[in-house]
Amino acid sequence: MPTTRPAPFRLSARSALLNASPIRELLKVVEQPGVLSLAGGLPPADAFPMVAVRDAAGRLLSRPAGRVALQYGPSEGHRPLREWVAAHLRARGVPAQAEHVLITTGSQQALELVGKVLIDPGSIVLVESPTYLGALQAFAPCAPDFRTLEADDQGPLPSSLASHPQARLAYLVPSFQNPCGLSLGGARREELVQAASAAGVPLLEDDPYGELWLDAPPPAPLAARWSEGTIHLGSFSKMLAPGLRVGWLLAPPAVFPKLLQAKQAADLHTPSLSQHLIAQLLLEDGFDLDGHLQGLRDRLRRSRDAMQAALLRHVGDLAHWRRPAGGMFFWLELAQPLDTLALLPQAVREGVAYVPGAAFYAAQPQPHTLRLSFATLAPEQIEEAVMKLGRVLRAAGMQAPAAREMLACPV
Amino acid sequence: MPTTRPAPFRLSARSALLNASPIRELLKVVEQPGVLSLAGGLPPADAFPMVAVRDAAGRLLSRPAGRVALQYGPSEGHRPLREWVAAHLRARGVPAQAEHVLITTGSQQALELVGKVLIDPGSIVLVESPTYLGALQAFAPCAPDFRTLEADDQGPLPSSLASHPQARLAYLVPSFQNPCGLSLGGARREELVQAASAAGVPLLEDDPYGELWLDAPPPAPLAARWSEGTIHLGSFSKMLAPGLRVGWLLAPPAVFPKLLQAKQAADLHTPSLSQHLIAQLLLEDGFDLDGHLQGLRDRLRRSRDAMQAALLRHVGDLAHWRRPAGGMFFWLELAQPLDTLALLPQAVREGVAYVPGAAFYAAQPQPHTLRLSFATLAPEQIEEAVMKLGRVLRAAGMQAPAAREMLACPV
Repeated sequence: MPTTRPAPFRLSARSALLNASPIRELLKVVEQPGVLSLAGGLPPADAFPMVAVRDAAGRLLSRPAGRVALQYGPSEGHRPLREWVAAHLRARGVPAQAEHVLITTGSQQALELVGKVLIDPGSIVLVESPTYLGALQAFAPCAPDFRTLEADDQGPLPSSLASHPQARLAYLVPSFQNPCGLSLGGARREELVQAASAAGVPLLEDDPYGELWLDAPPPAPLAARWSEGTIHLGSFSKMLAPGLRVGWLLAPPAVFPKLLQAKQAADLHTPSLSQHLIAQLLLEDGFDLDGHLQGLRDRLRRSRDAMQAALLRHVGDLAHWRRPAGGMFFWLELAQPLDTLALLPQAVREGVAYVPGAAFYAAQPQPHTLRLSFATLAPEQIEEAVMKLGRVLRAAGMQAPAAREMLACPV
Repeated sequence: MPTTRPAPFRLSARSALLNASPIRELLKVVEQPGVLSLAGGLPPADAFPMVAVRDAAGRLLSRPAGRVALQYGPSEGHRPLREWVAAHLRARGVPAQAEHVLITTGSQQALELVGKVLIDPGSIVLVESPTYLGALQAFAPCAPDFRTLEADDQGPLPSSLASHPQARLAYLVPSFQNPCGLSLGGARREELVQAASAAGVPLLEDDPYGELWLDAPPPAPLAARWSEGTIHLGSFSKMLAPGLRVGWLLAPPAVFPKLLQAKQAADLHTPSLSQHLIAQLLLEDGFDLDGHLQGLRDRLRRSRDAMQAALLRHVGDLAHWRRPAGGMFFWLELAQPLDTLALLPQAVREGVAYVPGAAFYAAQPQPHTLRLSFATLAPEQIEEAVMKLGRVLRAAGMQAPAAREMLACPV
């Protein structure tokens, strides 16, 4: 006879620090038929190398040795894939060895592993403002004391980093940051690294967008400048396909073993099938990754340019932004203090969705900001979506300010 | 110029609680060419439905709609797969709804999520002795106070569970336990559930082996008897292939939302490709899962019987064990107090590997125990491996005791 006693669960203190991702919750509401979504950070599905992946799967699973793709594997990851990652990083100036590469179940897992291994309750963690909210979500259960780095229009200030020598970690997205789109120049990277190493503050460099440059490749990563003090995260999510959930971290020997142990406890290892598929593609099938990335960049550049043109046309007098030189996002600051979260239901009724900017702040959220992804929709849909956005903003009472030239600063 | 300052990392207190899995570390040493390994819990690779998976991948990735298998997906998991899991559980008597099924990156992730959401430092967590060490590893960073349940030859004692009403969690592997192989009878399950619900102690039921019964299906799961108080874990790892890393948890509404939030922070979602592949196989391709499981059981039964015969032949006078009625493992207690960890290097030199039993204890490890997997090797290899094991034990000075009938108890 089934027992009908009430549920006896008592939740951990930590569980109060867990929060649903506002973006992912939002996506459930806004990604409806008939709504043009600029909200989700979804890479363009039409650019996935679908045929190549299918053929790689066919070849991999036709070989008797391919059974290994369905079996348990090492927690560190598939060795040939780790070798590939190390070589890929070395080509960007990072002194990487395969034995310090850990394959992770997407970059999100790498963020969580780093939090687990480096953050105690009350540990100071330095973040940009705004910053990637998935990182805030991954670190939050460890109860850090988030401090935001002061910044100028070139990015976080080295002096701000230097003023927190007791920090356990400074989390930075130097190339085409989510949500801002800003990419740090070589000089600022160098200054930040000097400040961090002088202060003894480890860097966590999150680099999912480095290959999504649209105008010119970004400068060498932070890990190329201070390999002993930097944990570097990368991913195949934007280069190939996020549904494979294969990312990586490169960590100095001082911290790699603990990250590996945390990985073992987390999910034993990243799916063998995803790892072997990528290895098949890159190492056996001679997949033209450079050509693929070039095509992806062309696709994203058209969308970026379409969004820039549409923004100038429809909200040029209502918002500030900078044209991103890569990545997937435009970041808008409205010229008037409208709450973009409160406005969202109206926008969805109008048929357009975005992410309210407040979600991206560890402290002092700015409610008049919003993030627009140019990666998902086709250029003509982007034009229509931004037109609707302009209509929503104007209907909410926004007007072009008298002195327009003081406000709009698209570059 | 690269900075050459030393590594500035300070590890969290939690990181001291992370430990490498003794088994996974061991496997690196013992799984060498020329060594017959009875150590790893690897399902038989020759039983993987390789052709069916390959064809499913081909069909999935040939459809335009198949692009979704390469894209980001919902944190809860692919809805049709959640429906399948719910129906699969309902067929075993569990009142499961798809909205309370969370797809996880293997059962290991489910263990870690449950730990995160339910365990505070010092929380009492009840475990069997011995128990699955991956669970100990997943919970350890939450700093629980592990208490072991007293047991008789039918399994954990309900009175022992009842004596810990303050426990946050009782972790049980009721069907073909790893490492012991014991499967709890229906009466014992019922008594344990009554004790837990009376005491208000939530149950975490880990059921990776339920479909690997070799003699008769196990009784209904604990979750069929107390759904409000039981979190139930399952997996495709043993039913189909572990390299896909797809497991699930079924959780009562009181705790599901927090587990979902922990999942989001952990890796956003389980790889879409693995999930869609399984859905393609089970829901589109008409894959004969029952037939596959029957074949798998036949394969495992032959190996189980081969190991039973080999053990009787070669170590029948040196150890106690019970013939498992399912799962993948034999658990041996040596008749004399030999330390199986200390003996392992000699065994590997002799060409056979096992897992020393001490790793499976939360407290008071019994060094004269060992775990043998019958799942990985073919029957004739099992005979040879066990013969070598007997030789190693005898070379270490083990002798048949005078009164043999008092010791050997294979059933």
